[in-house]
Amino acid sequence: MALRSAGDQTKTKNHEVREMSETFVGIDVGGTNVKIGLFDPNLKLISKTSVTTEAEMGPEIVIDKMVKTVENLLAENGFTLQDIVAVGIGTPGPAKYSEGIIIRSTNMPKFKNVPICRMLNEKLGAPIVFDNDANVACWGEFAVGAGKDVEDMVFFTLGTGIGGGIVCNGELVHGCDENGAELGHMIIHPDGRQCNCGQRGCAEAYASADSTAKRATEAVEGGAESSLKKVFDEKGKITSKDVYEHLAAGDKLAKEITDGTAKALAITCINMLHTTEPKRIVFAGGMIAAGDVLLNRIKDFFDEHIWTIKKEAVEICFATLGEDAGIIGAAALAQHTHQQGKLK
Amino acid sequence: MALRSAGDQTKTKNHEVREMSETFVGIDVGGTNVKIGLFDPNLKLISKTSVTTEAEMGPEIVIDKMVKTVENLLAENGFTLQDIVAVGIGTPGPAKYSEGIIIRSTNMPKFKNVPICRMLNEKLGAPIVFDNDANVACWGEFAVGAGKDVEDMVFFTLGTGIGGGIVCNGELVHGCDENGAELGHMIIHPDGRQCNCGQRGCAEAYASADSTAKRATEAVEGGAESSLKKVFDEKGKITSKDVYEHLAAGDKLAKEITDGTAKALAITCINMLHTTEPKRIVFAGGMIAAGDVLLNRIKDFFDEHIWTIKKEAVEICFATLGEDAGIIGAAALAQHTHQQGKLK
Repeated sequence: MALRSAGDQTKTKNHEVREMSETFVGIDVGGTNVKIGLFDPNLKLISKTSVTTEAEMGPEIVIDKMVKTVENLLAENGFTLQDIVAVGIGTPGPAKYSEGIIIRSTNMPKFKNVPICRMLNEKLGAPIVFDNDANVACWGEFAVGAGKDVEDMVFFTLGTGIGGGIVCNGELVHGCDENGAELGHMIIHPDGRQCNCGQRGCAEAYASADSTAKRATEAVEGGAESSLKKVFDEKGKITSKDVYEHLAAGDKLAKEITDGTAKALAITCINMLHTTEPKRIVFAGGMIAAGDVLLNRIKDFFDEHIWTIKKEAVEICFATLGEDAGIIGAAALAQHTHQQGKLK
Repeated sequence: MALRSAGDQTKTKNHEVREMSETFVGIDVGGTNVKIGLFDPNLKLISKTSVTTEAEMGPEIVIDKMVKTVENLLAENGFTLQDIVAVGIGTPGPAKYSEGIIIRSTNMPKFKNVPICRMLNEKLGAPIVFDNDANVACWGEFAVGAGKDVEDMVFFTLGTGIGGGIVCNGELVHGCDENGAELGHMIIHPDGRQCNCGQRGCAEAYASADSTAKRATEAVEGGAESSLKKVFDEKGKITSKDVYEHLAAGDKLAKEITDGTAKALAITCINMLHTTEPKRIVFAGGMIAAGDVLLNRIKDFFDEHIWTIKKEAVEICFATLGEDAGIIGAAALAQHTHQQGKLK
């Protein structure tokens, strides 16, 4: 099935040659762009590309565009559809991952009950492995990134919201309805700040990039003294990037706000240590651009609030794969599913 | 290995007869008593017994006593040591479960670095499967009790503290250092009440039987108006049983205290739903004697605080195995390990 269709000569060559012609495709679907990567059996990136999603065109056209992009990427690198062992794809939830169906999507309103796996499979011919974007990025870091040498990992993405992923005994945790690992919605302040999800006091309501910006904005609007006031007056808004820049410049409010972010994340880390007890906790997403000033404060609050005996059990660090985590993770998950003999 | 040593006739009989002579032993070690049960391959209890632990005599004597009790229980029921497929044992932590060593024990101070699995194996001849008491009880409920028809379960014991267990995809979650599922120590109120573990704001500091009693006591000592004051004046203390009795009698403080307990447990349930997403959450331990008045309030607060889409995913209920959960769970874990071909 995974033989490269390059004539008899290739087919009769030794095992190594055959291995080299097996490829995995990783697709990372976002509201704006679809990223696609072609990987060798060692998950080394052969080539990648990115196209605009154009979700407003509806699922048929978007999926056709994905298929054509995959075909072009293969052709450009001397492969054909027959060389694909499996395709991994990550999209935002909610979806029925095991059934291969996108239920709906905030950023892609025309995607309702779309059988994306069947549609892709019909056109690409290869088995499709489907999971949500956070799980896919988590698996990428676990397979070849910040968690590659551990068996138990927890993953947070700090962006508009807080996404999460859990790897337990070397496998992703999906939960009974495939909606587990929504780690940003752990409640750390009952009756606290309103979260977009409808709950109150979620970690996301304090520590996502958006919530960090929002808490700063509220403080400035409430009259707090801060160099961020000028930003707000000039731009009409404050971003988390602004907050971290003003922290670096010594602003007191920025310190207070970013400490709130770090503390909420530290409490969430402690709670994960008391549940699945990961060896490594990995932070990803736009906000990690803040660097050590964010990571070290998370570690400070973690050390301050956890009991003593588990302190050394866990390592807290940043993700290492950057923007390619989605395509790498999708391909890695396809490969893992293949290795387990579980491709459908 | 699991053949009953009952002469040639038995040995040459058909498969069914051989199956019937396979037994599993479950041992539940507590600070006061050691409970031991003998089970058939369907985990039906053949016979059980209980002896005082006498931990002050030291590990050698305690383990010898366990061995003799197992031997007597077998003999009384027409079995010998050769009939044991495997022995399961649960003890309080911390321990190195995979290495079979009790590191230390609050209730058994002479148990330090005790290689309990090796010691039991040398005398009983059978493989020993070892886990902590909460995990073992959790596994019992999962295998044959309140969670027997699901794949993903979370378990809480409400006693002096709050113990926990997590079953994910049909397997117990141990964590990287075998100290996972300490669910009572999830922080739900950062900088909140001091917990015995050293942290602040743990669920255990609000919702264990002891914390429920303690919060009531503090309120009465602080001058709160309550029918519990008489209990305190007469007995010098208030128990969680007292609090629930006075709740039934309409006491306002008892309502406030028990609502605090139920709410803390509900928040912890919500947090578990957003992590491993269990299908069922099972409460066990002495405090569930309070009955529906406890369970229904947990459900009320759960419904009130969770976002809407996950509300129906989970069932919250009480454990069904009662005091036998430990021996059943230990035997069931031994059987499960046997079925997986992982006995050592």
